[in-house]
Amino acid sequence: MLPIAVDAMGGDHAPSAIVAGAVRAARAGIPVCLVGDPERLRIGPGWPATLTVEPARDTIEMDERPIAVRARPDTSVRRTMAMVAAGRASAAVSCGHTGAILLAAVLELGTMDGVERPALATVLPRRDRGRLFLLDAGANVDCRPELLVSFARLGAAYACSEGVERPRIGLLSNGEEERKGNQQVRATLPLLRASGLHVVGPVEPTSALAGACDVVVCDGFVGNVFLKAAEGAVDTVVGLLREEILRYRTGRIGAFLLRGALRRFRRRAAWESTGGALLLGTRGTVVVGHGRARAPAVENAIRTAAQFARAGRLDALRHYLHR
Amino acid sequence: MLPIAVDAMGGDHAPSAIVAGAVRAARAGIPVCLVGDPERLRIGPGWPATLTVEPARDTIEMDERPIAVRARPDTSVRRTMAMVAAGRASAAVSCGHTGAILLAAVLELGTMDGVERPALATVLPRRDRGRLFLLDAGANVDCRPELLVSFARLGAAYACSEGVERPRIGLLSNGEEERKGNQQVRATLPLLRASGLHVVGPVEPTSALAGACDVVVCDGFVGNVFLKAAEGAVDTVVGLLREEILRYRTGRIGAFLLRGALRRFRRRAAWESTGGALLLGTRGTVVVGHGRARAPAVENAIRTAAQFARAGRLDALRHYLHR
Repeated sequence: MLPIAVDAMGGDHAPSAIVAGAVRAARAGIPVCLVGDPERLRIGPGWPATLTVEPARDTIEMDERPIAVRARPDTSVRRTMAMVAAGRASAAVSCGHTGAILLAAVLELGTMDGVERPALATVLPRRDRGRLFLLDAGANVDCRPELLVSFARLGAAYACSEGVERPRIGLLSNGEEERKGNQQVRATLPLLRASGLHVVGPVEPTSALAGACDVVVCDGFVGNVFLKAAEGAVDTVVGLLREEILRYRTGRIGAFLLRGALRRFRRRAAWESTGGALLLGTRGTVVVGHGRARAPAVENAIRTAAQFARAGRLDALRHYLHR
Repeated sequence: MLPIAVDAMGGDHAPSAIVAGAVRAARAGIPVCLVGDPERLRIGPGWPATLTVEPARDTIEMDERPIAVRARPDTSVRRTMAMVAAGRASAAVSCGHTGAILLAAVLELGTMDGVERPALATVLPRRDRGRLFLLDAGANVDCRPELLVSFARLGAAYACSEGVERPRIGLLSNGEEERKGNQQVRATLPLLRASGLHVVGPVEPTSALAGACDVVVCDGFVGNVFLKAAEGAVDTVVGLLREEILRYRTGRIGAFLLRGALRRFRRRAAWESTGGALLLGTRGTVVVGHGRARAPAVENAIRTAAQFARAGRLDALRHYLHR
């Protein structure tokens, strides 16, 4: 198997957390190629043989504008994408800033036929045990209605490639009534209804998470708020639960007996550990990790990329997009 | 104490759920006046004496446009507001549609000096045990930057009136960096910084819920997505937890010992039961309940209104807004 190319310099805790996550993934049998400054990525004695380094002497800092990648082909994020484009890696992973990753991917990999701009897609657990495919989760803001319709097509193809038959598409809104929504939503709805996709109409976050649709489409600004509000609310609730449990002795005994359930619960509810979002619509598999990712989250993002690449999902996605 | 005027005809489960909630509140000692179709609101033999009825022969249906209230002064939502305006009720409660409530409140009560449009404010629990004042939570969409600044002023005054000293204001965005955000956020930030308020800058939902600010300001479309994504995520997580707990016998024993903690947790985490959002900036206390409210949520909305009215918070809010 070709290695997963990992941008070692992108993310709040790069390169240390990225390297640590890559070592974990490599030990678990996934070949990984770290892309970055070779001075800061010297292979240590304990590194697994499945971990290699590809030099990239330039780095995009978190406070730079994404457009900066355009003139700098030797940045780690562009070299990461270039490895996939050259057939030297099976997928790319970066925890750097989303805008720079998007632009680097477009420059090095190009977009699929008929795709104007790639979208960031993330998968959330639904209350009915299904999965909610949310896009755009933060790659494009202030989108035209036509762009939202193309996100719906990408999302439908993604859901199909993941085994969802005839995915139901919802347009994120502040109410289920047609006359609700902002200008963007009201302008998009008729176009979406005319798209030939299985459109259920405007949906609210609550009903989407309860199972009203399989794919929820929105502007990247709004999608990012959706994702992070859900994440933040879960963190708050888990914190409250811990406090309540530790308050009394019966609670602590109960918690001891419950520890298995709580552990599984944490795993299922840990939105962050799901391993990053997929950039859909480029000619290659690109996983965008959380900017704040530590080693376990980096490892998960690499696992996500490897699974996607191994299963040939990109071909399936292309197939469903163009049929 | 003057009664709380309650729009008996607004909401998905009106009038039955509204009446049931009003009966509960009245039994708990809060005088309530139900406003609506007298044919459908006949006082039953078991009704407490503190529950009265004010006739309003017209009703705005959920699928009507909010603007319809303009020409129809005899709708239940307008009569509810009119009771407050006439000094016959201390506060108004409605679970009808937000747009209609907003317009009815502006028509009957008017806005406070310097307020162009009222905003819907809601309070969320933060991870650091503080409270997050979120506005606009859904009353105004596609807001101009100046409107967002006025929401910040209203939110700051609200937080002050609730005892928060020098509230920290965050502008909701998809990243903490200044160059992130959509056009609306980027246009608002300089105006907000020049407002004299204590502005911390752009904030993400995760950091806002973790305690990075006291007041988070946003467009009503985005604020509604924030609120409902948080609500939906909490519902999903509580559902997962229940499943995990019931899976094994030790889990069930543990859950028995934990039942006190779980009950308190449910109460603290039940975002819906917090009792509705406050419409800020009108010359009267107006509480907007959840459209899907059942009797307990209606009772809570009435309690919220009564507490606010009793404590003279509206005067405090006006004081902080104009000092």
